[in-house]
Amino acid sequence: MTYPTTTAQSLLQVARDARGVVTLTLNDPKRFNALGSEMLAALQQALDAIAQDEGARVVVLAAEGKAFCAGHNLKDMAQHPELSWYQQLFAQCSRVMLSIHKLSVPVIARVQGMATAAGCQLVAQCDLAVASEGASFATSGIHYGLFCSTPSVPLVRNVPAKRAMEMLLTGDFIDARTALEQGLVNRVVPQDALDAEMEKLVCSILEKPRTAVAMGKALVYQQRELGIDAAYQLAGQTMATNMMDEAAQEGARAFAEKRPPAWKPQAH
Amino acid sequence: MTYPTTTAQSLLQVARDARGVVTLTLNDPKRFNALGSEMLAALQQALDAIAQDEGARVVVLAAEGKAFCAGHNLKDMAQHPELSWYQQLFAQCSRVMLSIHKLSVPVIARVQGMATAAGCQLVAQCDLAVASEGASFATSGIHYGLFCSTPSVPLVRNVPAKRAMEMLLTGDFIDARTALEQGLVNRVVPQDALDAEMEKLVCSILEKPRTAVAMGKALVYQQRELGIDAAYQLAGQTMATNMMDEAAQEGARAFAEKRPPAWKPQAH
Amino acid sequence: MTYPTTTAQSLLQVARDARGVVTLTLNDPKRFNALGSEMLAALQQALDAIAQDEGARVVVLAAEGKAFCAGHNLKDMAQHPELSWYQQLFAQCSRVMLSIHKLSVPVIARVQGMATAAGCQLVAQCDLAVASEGASFATSGIHYGLFCSTPSVPLVRNVPAKRAMEMLLTGDFIDARTALEQGLVNRVVPQDALDAEMEKLVCSILEKPRTAVAMGKALVYQQRELGIDAAYQLAGQTMATNMMDEAAQEGARAFAEKRPPAWKPQAH
Repeated sequence: MTYPTTTAQSLLQVARDARGVVTLTLNDPKRFNALGSEMLAALQQALDAIAQDEGARVVVLAAEGKAFCAGHNLKDMAQHPELSWYQQLFAQCSRVMLSIHKLSVPVIARVQGMATAAGCQLVAQCDLAVASEGASFATSGIHYGLFCSTPSVPLVRNVPAKRAMEMLLTGDFIDARTALEQGLVNRVVPQDALDAEMEKLVCSILEKPRTAVAMGKALVYQQRELGIDAAYQLAGQTMATNMMDEAAQEGARAFAEKRPPAWKPQAH
Repeated sequence: MTYPTTTAQSLLQVARDARGVVTLTLNDPKRFNALGSEMLAALQQALDAIAQDEGARVVVLAAEGKAFCAGHNLKDMAQHPELSWYQQLFAQCSRVMLSIHKLSVPVIARVQGMATAAGCQLVAQCDLAVASEGASFATSGIHYGLFCSTPSVPLVRNVPAKRAMEMLLTGDFIDARTALEQGLVNRVVPQDALDAEMEKLVCSILEKPRTAVAMGKALVYQQRELGIDAAYQLAGQTMATNMMDEAAQEGARAFAEKRPPAWKPQAH
Repeated sequence: MTYPTTTAQSLLQVARDARGVVTLTLNDPKRFNALGSEMLAALQQALDAIAQDEGARVVVLAAEGKAFCAGHNLKDMAQHPELSWYQQLFAQCSRVMLSIHKLSVPVIARVQGMATAAGCQLVAQCDLAVASEGASFATSGIHYGLFCSTPSVPLVRNVPAKRAMEMLLTGDFIDARTALEQGLVNRVVPQDALDAEMEKLVCSILEKPRTAVAMGKALVYQQRELGIDAAYQLAGQTMATNMMDEAAQEGARAFAEKRPPAWKPQAH
């Protein structure tokens, strides 16, 4: 494994437990965990390491402090008024987002506070998200003259069209309940129940075979971009291949024999 | 007409009434109406017959027993550990699903119980669905190591992205109310009101001219896969062609003369 | 500017205020603001003028009388049973709809009453919509044998699939609360609060720089039609270009200096 060594001072805390749960914690609370170039580089490095970790099973994306993530650092951006600098920054950020999307293991956002602009995008881009009741969400760039264009990419793929447009044009916050209703997060719980709720989802995924989860995540996003005939063709092929996996064979035998699959209790 | 003759023992009951309502009833309650090869063949045969029945107006997809449909038969699958066998099975199943999608008459699911895996897919694939309060839904394959890839095709086209991903990754059940909120079904009613609610929808469709319904159903699914310019072009052309139909001409005249269209009371 | 002069008798009232808010009011209450050829021509002319008005900031689409808009005029249609006449009418109507979609400034529907068929389509096609509690919505063409094919284009891009199909097949009304739940409108308020609620949204948009809003609106709809990789590429490029705009540079500086952007109070 090639995970970076992190200290208490690192911008991004990376912790991998024996079960294969990798927790990435944004750790720049003073700057509301802004996604500066350094933070993005740390995220990219961690995501690349996870992509090569065959024992990784699920990623938790968490944050320290009151805010989840305030998005790009407008202060930095004010100091670099060059097109190429911005192009590079947004390309770097989009690469992080697409790495989450393409990672073979599910990524779950743990949203304990405010998620704005590219911070809101992070939540939208994760496969699943759990928020505390006090969390709030906004694509707020437009308040400073910068329309949240890249955040709109996962936003319109998660939230109904007119809701997404309202968030993008007004820049206003929605609360956690509204985010739940609109599909931006999966669950909302009191702050002190956040870790327990995350653990439930994490354990649910750990119970499932890694190969099936990896095949499935990739398939869902691929087929969604295809016409329905091509989608079915790809999905059928994926499912047949999935059945050739030892875990699925054992699952089918276990079903026939009315017992839990041998892989069920332990994560592997 | 070429409808198969069904007896009380047939896996699939096929009944067509004088109005053109074809009711397909999954009739293998002991195996929770599992979609084995035989059941899929019976469904395909019935759907092919409906496609050639010019008097058919609407299809009701119902089920006998406590479960609506438990999806593929994992027991059978355990006995056939060959890639080609699985490819054939999923291709057969996808063909049934696409036949529902492409049928010119609307298909309404009548969900009286549990709908899991390809059973949940059947509900998602129908044009409309009514569920009893006790119905429940899961894409549960992942519990046995088989990600519900083909069910994900209609699921992501009906349900918000993060909800779909949660169902697919956890395999957990959602209840009928939740299915309603998420767009998986159109209506939820007490079990004893299920037939009356179905009849309302059926009658609403019977009141409409067959040609307009057929053109419209096909158009909606075709244009949804296009960019908005191409979608409008196709839709405009479809609507102009629709207006040349005698029923639409009569409808427009009836509107102008403030009377119901002559075709309105009787289905035709 | 080339706005048409309108009198109290004009089918479409066009009013542009000093802030750049252009209000288009359908003014044919006796015919429930039906979208006949003349009304469509007036809308097209006004939308074309807005597209050339560099000071325009936001469009309000409103209506006089009890109905918002009853869609096409079936009475007219009954008198022209020629395919080419219908083709021309639907092409004219689709062009109006696409002009709303492609306009660089946001268009907000103010729905004070019934919106049916192409009237419902107008609401769906707008970027945002506010409805009074008494408003109602239907894609009702099917009651007269004419499936609402063109209305289905924005409908399926705003509303979950089975809800859209139910509206299209039954032709039945949904009330304002249901429209809100389904994503067809952004907000529902009592009739006497409708103008105040519209003004809030209008002011929110006026506070934002015109260029960012224009870039953003176009980007959202373009990227939505692309695969996610291409979507991110386009969005990143758009955002970098957006940052080169003076208003965004000032916004970033203002953020760094903890003061409101200089452009903030006045619309420009």
